[in-house]
Amino acid sequence: MIRDANRFDPGQYQPEHFLWSYSEGVATITLNIPERKNPLTFQSYAELRDLFRDLVYVDDVKAVVITGAGDNFCSGGDVHDIIGPLTKMDMRGLLDFTRMTGDLVKAMRACPQPIIAAIDGICVGAGAIIAMSSDFRYGTERTKTGFLFTRVGLAGCDMGACAILPRIIGQGRAADLLYTGRMMSAEEGERWGFFNRLVAPEEVLQTAEDMAHSLLKGPTFAHGITKTMLHQEWNMSIDQAIEAEAQAQAICMQTEDFTRAYNAFVAKQKPVFEGN
Amino acid sequence: MIRDANRFDPGQYQPEHFLWSYSEGVATITLNIPERKNPLTFQSYAELRDLFRDLVYVDDVKAVVITGAGDNFCSGGDVHDIIGPLTKMDMRGLLDFTRMTGDLVKAMRACPQPIIAAIDGICVGAGAIIAMSSDFRYGTERTKTGFLFTRVGLAGCDMGACAILPRIIGQGRAADLLYTGRMMSAEEGERWGFFNRLVAPEEVLQTAEDMAHSLLKGPTFAHGITKTMLHQEWNMSIDQAIEAEAQAQAICMQTEDFTRAYNAFVAKQKPVFEGN
Amino acid sequence: MIRDANRFDPGQYQPEHFLWSYSEGVATITLNIPERKNPLTFQSYAELRDLFRDLVYVDDVKAVVITGAGDNFCSGGDVHDIIGPLTKMDMRGLLDFTRMTGDLVKAMRACPQPIIAAIDGICVGAGAIIAMSSDFRYGTERTKTGFLFTRVGLAGCDMGACAILPRIIGQGRAADLLYTGRMMSAEEGERWGFFNRLVAPEEVLQTAEDMAHSLLKGPTFAHGITKTMLHQEWNMSIDQAIEAEAQAQAICMQTEDFTRAYNAFVAKQKPVFEGN
Repeated sequence: MIRDANRFDPGQYQPEHFLWSYSEGVATITLNIPERKNPLTFQSYAELRDLFRDLVYVDDVKAVVITGAGDNFCSGGDVHDIIGPLTKMDMRGLLDFTRMTGDLVKAMRACPQPIIAAIDGICVGAGAIIAMSSDFRYGTERTKTGFLFTRVGLAGCDMGACAILPRIIGQGRAADLLYTGRMMSAEEGERWGFFNRLVAPEEVLQTAEDMAHSLLKGPTFAHGITKTMLHQEWNMSIDQAIEAEAQAQAICMQTEDFTRAYNAFVAKQKPVFEGN
Repeated sequence: MIRDANRFDPGQYQPEHFLWSYSEGVATITLNIPERKNPLTFQSYAELRDLFRDLVYVDDVKAVVITGAGDNFCSGGDVHDIIGPLTKMDMRGLLDFTRMTGDLVKAMRACPQPIIAAIDGICVGAGAIIAMSSDFRYGTERTKTGFLFTRVGLAGCDMGACAILPRIIGQGRAADLLYTGRMMSAEEGERWGFFNRLVAPEEVLQTAEDMAHSLLKGPTFAHGITKTMLHQEWNMSIDQAIEAEAQAQAICMQTEDFTRAYNAFVAKQKPVFEGN
Repeated sequence: MIRDANRFDPGQYQPEHFLWSYSEGVATITLNIPERKNPLTFQSYAELRDLFRDLVYVDDVKAVVITGAGDNFCSGGDVHDIIGPLTKMDMRGLLDFTRMTGDLVKAMRACPQPIIAAIDGICVGAGAIIAMSSDFRYGTERTKTGFLFTRVGLAGCDMGACAILPRIIGQGRAADLLYTGRMMSAEEGERWGFFNRLVAPEEVLQTAEDMAHSLLKGPTFAHGITKTMLHQEWNMSIDQAIEAEAQAQAICMQTEDFTRAYNAFVAKQKPVFEGN
């Protein structure tokens, strides 16, 4: 059953547990408990998950920026609000929780909008996971990223980290971060391919929003297919992936945007894409 | 049915849509429409695909170098010859086309010969895919590599790019290139593992041919198995891959080349491999 | 059938074909034929395989360091002891051998203890594989690492190299090393993500043992789960991996170590983990 996309008005949406702003196709999510470096709570996890699930049906949002208030990205699951209660839960409750957090990552990867993370300061725990699960990551020289689950007695396998992080920075470096929970410096993060670029703290949000607006000027339907296929081909064989891409690209070749690009080229103009 | 390898004489082969030269086991393919930076056409796609398929049966070619004429590698699918007609095709025709281009990559990965790309100047679109699908890549400081499908209104998933590129340069960097279609500089390409080495423009073809001849001096049957297994193990589990390698290496241990290496070692000589 | 872990006393264990030392939960394996740069023999392969298989049941060993005596890590399969006999074996014997060597890697990945390799000097052939199959790798500026199977007439697919190495250093760089058998310099190894760090030769073993002891202070049950999941998720889809991690992390949330971490946090103390 397809939801009513009109139900969701990105200009009017007011989430309870984070900030939302919207401008010309780009939505910006700001984690906003700056006095505690923007931790996640049960409520913000669930609301983020529901939002990314809804975005599948929201045509007016073409790209999403995610950031944190007050010079930090996110301090992860709140120790008092989340870790305390978890220590008292039974297995059913624990699995409900770990599945809910995993569902946030699944929803981030399943929505068609590219997600661009603007990451200053602290980026740890579930915050590091949200960064990892984005499509673009911009950091600053003071960004500190830590997959510090081990520090609270847990394993490095949280919300997909043992699968996704190794494909971004390599298996050896990921193992180090996941076993030790140590901080990855911004410089390491750029050198290892975690960050697409490091910029000045005062420019990081603008850099992310500029990228979002720049993607908007491209063929946004095709961007959604790019995102789908990066996900879909994750564990296909090469031959399977090539066939899957043959089908996916043939779909894109029947969009008007493909014709628009060709016509613009012939007319020596810049194409104006419309996302269909 | 096994083709008659004798049908194909590498010293006599004269392709219609690219240049071919052959010397002592090494074949060099040169894309040769330099006035337009060596675009691919429907005909050159098909002829390249057929050639790589035939090479499976051609013992006299032990390694393949691929390059472009006139200081550029390849400008990708020709806008007039290819993109124009595609905008007018029905789905059947489009899928025929995307499968044909995908079949080129499949054929490049399926032939036993290592493929060494010598890449100067422009390397974009299907040209970047050919580079990506090679076994070795040598660039120059002026090489510009772009997966620019998005610029013509398409998705980044072309000919296997969403599967293969992330495994070469990492998932985060690949996402950037595939969503934006931006140029990867030569320096980025080297730093990220796309290029094995950057050399001077006047040396890049020689470097590739030197590597080809150097591989020829090795155990070429075993090289073919290396290529097969890099392909075959792509999405196996670790334990499956280890068993697959146990079988594949046991095959190689029954070649004469293995005994030749041992005998040469005992005699304190350099082994002379014969590829069987 | 679960073995009797009490059978194995890490303080008393005396292997025949390598050195073993044990201190406070950390076992150090030293390959010890320094006059030939610590080659492997049929016997040491088998004994290492059996040891790593046994370690699954040995609670008192929480981390393993592996190194080589006399300024070198390992020169790989001994030419006289191993390669000579192999050239005379039938297929059954060859497959027995390649499966045995592969079983060493399987056992290294299947035991719950993180393995930390301290790698000085020569690290080639099966030695490079043992390094590759470890969880952490520390090198020195004079470490030379070579997957040199091709030099003895074999393919690069040995003991999982075509699957594992590309995920550590990238597909393009791995192809180069596996086809050519050339040495990877220490500097390349660090830059490409093979080595976690390069340290002075006189410090490399201590660095590895320090990391081992530091991991011991963490939640060792959870470390074992991290290792299991890095292995288990290798070729899962992202969504499968997220579900697998939801289950695995829920298990860890029922350990006492998780509660210990929370209680220590509330009390503003450093947690003391006990591995359960």
